[in-house]
Amino acid sequence: MIKVAINGYGTIGKRVADAVAAQKDMKVVGVSKTRPSAEAFVAKAKGYPLYIADLTKKDAFTKFGLPVAGSVEGMLKEADVVVDCTPGGVGEKNKPLYEKLGVKAIFQGGEEHELAGFSFCSDCNFSEAVGRQFVRVVSCNTTGLCRIINTMDRAFGVDRVLAVMVRRGSDPGEVKRGPVDAVVLDPVTIPSHHGPDVNTVLPHVNIVTLAMIVPTTMMHMHAVHMQLRRDAPREEVLAQMRAHPRIGLVKKGTEIKSTAELKEFVMDLGRPRSDLWENGVYEESVTTIGRDLYLFQAIHQEADVVVESVDAIRAMMGTVKEAERSIAMTNEALGFSPIR
Amino acid sequence: MIKVAINGYGTIGKRVADAVAAQKDMKVVGVSKTRPSAEAFVAKAKGYPLYIADLTKKDAFTKFGLPVAGSVEGMLKEADVVVDCTPGGVGEKNKPLYEKLGVKAIFQGGEEHELAGFSFCSDCNFSEAVGRQFVRVVSCNTTGLCRIINTMDRAFGVDRVLAVMVRRGSDPGEVKRGPVDAVVLDPVTIPSHHGPDVNTVLPHVNIVTLAMIVPTTMMHMHAVHMQLRRDAPREEVLAQMRAHPRIGLVKKGTEIKSTAELKEFVMDLGRPRSDLWENGVYEESVTTIGRDLYLFQAIHQEADVVVESVDAIRAMMGTVKEAERSIAMTNEALGFSPIR
Amino acid sequence: MIKVAINGYGTIGKRVADAVAAQKDMKVVGVSKTRPSAEAFVAKAKGYPLYIADLTKKDAFTKFGLPVAGSVEGMLKEADVVVDCTPGGVGEKNKPLYEKLGVKAIFQGGEEHELAGFSFCSDCNFSEAVGRQFVRVVSCNTTGLCRIINTMDRAFGVDRVLAVMVRRGSDPGEVKRGPVDAVVLDPVTIPSHHGPDVNTVLPHVNIVTLAMIVPTTMMHMHAVHMQLRRDAPREEVLAQMRAHPRIGLVKKGTEIKSTAELKEFVMDLGRPRSDLWENGVYEESVTTIGRDLYLFQAIHQEADVVVESVDAIRAMMGTVKEAERSIAMTNEALGFSPIR
Amino acid sequence: MIKVAINGYGTIGKRVADAVAAQKDMKVVGVSKTRPSAEAFVAKAKGYPLYIADLTKKDAFTKFGLPVAGSVEGMLKEADVVVDCTPGGVGEKNKPLYEKLGVKAIFQGGEEHELAGFSFCSDCNFSEAVGRQFVRVVSCNTTGLCRIINTMDRAFGVDRVLAVMVRRGSDPGEVKRGPVDAVVLDPVTIPSHHGPDVNTVLPHVNIVTLAMIVPTTMMHMHAVHMQLRRDAPREEVLAQMRAHPRIGLVKKGTEIKSTAELKEFVMDLGRPRSDLWENGVYEESVTTIGRDLYLFQAIHQEADVVVESVDAIRAMMGTVKEAERSIAMTNEALGFSPIR
Repeated sequence: MIKVAINGYGTIGKRVADAVAAQKDMKVVGVSKTRPSAEAFVAKAKGYPLYIADLTKKDAFTKFGLPVAGSVEGMLKEADVVVDCTPGGVGEKNKPLYEKLGVKAIFQGGEEHELAGFSFCSDCNFSEAVGRQFVRVVSCNTTGLCRIINTMDRAFGVDRVLAVMVRRGSDPGEVKRGPVDAVVLDPVTIPSHHGPDVNTVLPHVNIVTLAMIVPTTMMHMHAVHMQLRRDAPREEVLAQMRAHPRIGLVKKGTEIKSTAELKEFVMDLGRPRSDLWENGVYEESVTTIGRDLYLFQAIHQEADVVVESVDAIRAMMGTVKEAERSIAMTNEALGFSPIR
Repeated sequence: MIKVAINGYGTIGKRVADAVAAQKDMKVVGVSKTRPSAEAFVAKAKGYPLYIADLTKKDAFTKFGLPVAGSVEGMLKEADVVVDCTPGGVGEKNKPLYEKLGVKAIFQGGEEHELAGFSFCSDCNFSEAVGRQFVRVVSCNTTGLCRIINTMDRAFGVDRVLAVMVRRGSDPGEVKRGPVDAVVLDPVTIPSHHGPDVNTVLPHVNIVTLAMIVPTTMMHMHAVHMQLRRDAPREEVLAQMRAHPRIGLVKKGTEIKSTAELKEFVMDLGRPRSDLWENGVYEESVTTIGRDLYLFQAIHQEADVVVESVDAIRAMMGTVKEAERSIAMTNEALGFSPIR
Repeated sequence: MIKVAINGYGTIGKRVADAVAAQKDMKVVGVSKTRPSAEAFVAKAKGYPLYIADLTKKDAFTKFGLPVAGSVEGMLKEADVVVDCTPGGVGEKNKPLYEKLGVKAIFQGGEEHELAGFSFCSDCNFSEAVGRQFVRVVSCNTTGLCRIINTMDRAFGVDRVLAVMVRRGSDPGEVKRGPVDAVVLDPVTIPSHHGPDVNTVLPHVNIVTLAMIVPTTMMHMHAVHMQLRRDAPREEVLAQMRAHPRIGLVKKGTEIKSTAELKEFVMDLGRPRSDLWENGVYEESVTTIGRDLYLFQAIHQEADVVVESVDAIRAMMGTVKEAERSIAMTNEALGFSPIR
Repeated sequence: MIKVAINGYGTIGKRVADAVAAQKDMKVVGVSKTRPSAEAFVAKAKGYPLYIADLTKKDAFTKFGLPVAGSVEGMLKEADVVVDCTPGGVGEKNKPLYEKLGVKAIFQGGEEHELAGFSFCSDCNFSEAVGRQFVRVVSCNTTGLCRIINTMDRAFGVDRVLAVMVRRGSDPGEVKRGPVDAVVLDPVTIPSHHGPDVNTVLPHVNIVTLAMIVPTTMMHMHAVHMQLRRDAPREEVLAQMRAHPRIGLVKKGTEIKSTAELKEFVMDLGRPRSDLWENGVYEESVTTIGRDLYLFQAIHQEADVVVESVDAIRAMMGTVKEAERSIAMTNEALGFSPIR
């Protein structure tokens, strides 16, 4: 039973906690918050021991009936691995503590590659993570790109990739971030950081990414163009996608044409938090013209890295050695009801 | 076991189906669709027999692997009660068929009061629905107003009500309706139809409503002012709300200040489809100045009428005679994890 | 010729500059920016001398071809009056400099009443501003409330007011602020600060305000209920509004039902920056039931305080003694093409 | 003096009317509406004779004080050219009337290429339009693509183009269309119609377009990748853009990173209706890697076709024979204050 702590019980952390709790080979030893909020009540309702960064603030929690189990340092001492789900940049500040306590740590894509020295995507480089103390699970967008590029690269070879990434402005529960009515180039310069970030996982890929932000909370949308090394008949491409455990094909018969309808579908299928852990590739969009492949894929910013984090735990602990097996274990425990 | 058919398996219908299926004294005999879509795949995944309005269109379903159980008329013959969840105005066209087949029918708030001759809200007039063939469950906004007004009226007497209703522009899964960037007066004239609609349930209430539409999908927000018949100490008001099985108090400690954060909280608690079946009254907003009561409440447009429809089924069938008991049964079967 | 400086050339400042420049009895001696941006290029295009807070940052401007006329202190020495249009709270920090230099200063509604000791609305208390060194022009929402309440109070007497204020999330040119998809209670508690703020101008008014924020950039919308001291026939109410130089009645024939359509109309009429300087009262919404008056009004957050600031300049300088005359001068110079 | 009628005084029509009225060699003989609305009041305020499709509806206009000059057929008899700005598909129904009366007609991009038999973009094929009776001005997105592709093609040769078009959901004054919170693939299939539409103007270009819709009203955003026939140093590319009379370069110094900030800038410069008639290419985004060119450009959906329509009038009338001269005349009359 791998003992897992979640440092930062927010948008990603609360999902990682539930995903870990669902695995037969893992348990949640604690989650942390810096201040009381709705998510602290959720942790209590779920029965996760709640640790806090600054024990002098304990009263701020207990006055609302929120029991405090101890300090973050205390939590880490209970754990084999900590999944650091703090906001971007905070992970860097936490690393010395993890080093001091000798606890393995997973950082999120908001941290630099160099912090962990290794960037992870389950079906790209699982075996290289085996036994490591520090691993960085790449961001939601990079994860979505790595999955689809690696899949096509294995099957057809990929000469170059152009991805235009239309990103959600805020998560559904965030109310301060915008934009309200604008398309924002983020960055204005080309390429965006996503291309180089893909290269931390897949170093050899020739990729240019362009990124913008739009006023939606639902999901990111990627418009992807790959030039393959050989002609790729559409049915072969689709078959490769269908064979991937974390690529979901949005079927034509569903008449789903948007991020919102896709999320509604996933919700209706009973997924916790309406989470789409897979890439949502729109089947009808998959188009091949000779060696050129075009497609649209939706990436759920809150969900796709969650399953990768679970796999990373197994790899780092060395309890599972093959990506396929860990992916299958993770998916099964979550009850993946395939959308395809 | 009450046999229930759902005519119109869309935003409301799919929720009613799941809520009915969760009750120990009811079963879903079928759901209907007019054309294939994501929701037809959901019905299949959930195991609900799928009936279609026009049997000549059967192939449109079967070619996508969606089995068709028969016609809507066939479905109705299996049912004791049909919950008509078709779009506004269609219920009126369906009524003659229900009359012909002698099936009891529940209409939604999009239909006129006159269609059913009786408008329903569980804790206001359950007993008057006993044995009826036709009942109209009032709309989400009217249901939310009836619950809170009736509760205050019983406890303090209500002299007059002003409610300003800030309505969501579209449901999350709708992608064609706006507005994108506007506040739309709907209607420009005052009062809106909601006040008179409250009077179909609570005829004696003196109420004026103003309504507008804003670019959000999340929930409606009501700003409510009630002039009570006697001084209402804030704690007494809160106690009345806490005692109501379908009024949820959003606690100060959660730091929830918006519809989006409230929906996230409900999602995190594991509610199916992140549904808030209760009125979401913001505890901190509840303010009394002498006989004047002010508050904000969030109303989840997709959810609050669902539980009312389940109660209406029992009332019409006469299997339960008291509102309290049916409400308790419905709530328990759904596993209401109280937000307060 | 009154010499006017604008400290803070942003959303409000750039409008004040153009409005001042349009007056026959005033001139713009300079505008200030802290850093280069699109608005600095606009100042250059308009020919306003550009002053900067920190002269050591001059190169940051000149490298983009933006000439710098001097420091803010230099600008103030050229001016009879400065309109402080810096972000909320910065005015407070600027006051000592204004005092040191003995320049009259107008602060915006983002500052506390106490900073100036006098809060201003042209048609409510113009004469009390005559000769003052410091005046605070109340915020857009408070200005809109003061105009309509004062007008009704003069004509009918106002017993009490309830206003529900549905506020825009960000200005059109702001891209960082949200919300994207939420109704945010701001504040959750009742009343909001707007009621007390009205009382800084109209101390005797009994008013409760409730405020929320929605994802739109266009305008604020107020739903207003006033209990008057005598029966108010609708035509009398409308006549009072028509007689007010800064209340615009949105006519039924235009079929305008929203903030967006109103702004489009004002744009089409050729107003600079599509600015609605008046309250936009929807004629069809104006409803009287005995002594109760209900209405909707749109308030353009970027514009209504601009004309008030121009009037405040004249009052403080003592060059015009009557509100009516200054209002007429301001309106005429801007070429108010009435929307009614 | 070319006599111009505008059939359909809406979003595009009202802009074309003002642009025509500003030209020295043209006059507006009339504009048409089917029903009274805000825009009818605008036509009156601007002094454009108002014609209506159905004279039996004259009273609907005159009761609101809107004078009716006659029927659309009457308007057409006064005109040398009609610019048909009716909604997509209506132009097709109007063509027989234009043929009957022998009036030259310009259709918008919402109509099929075949309706006019010739699709127009000023700097691509002006001379081919000379003397024609029917011309179709391509849509805003196609116009924006044609301008930039043709410019690069002339200078460097263009091997292939990929454009991902992130389109606004509704115009600012539209309040019924969404989406509110979604990215909608429109269409899901690849390519979108824009590529083939570019080929109606530039038949030899190898182009694939992908299109989606997002919840904004401001402008479209294009992410463009062109493979050129020779290496294209960035400065050469920028020089070509600077030399184009309808490509605006958004300068780095403005710090403009979005559609909203760009529109604000154009507004501040005093453009009527904040219209950006040019392509808004973000200078910082222009990136060349060998023969590969990447850039972002904003396209103002309401504005860019307006200036093309004015040029098309001259070409069809044969009064000007060279694109450059007409473009210069149009731009000068509108007082293009360059954004670069």
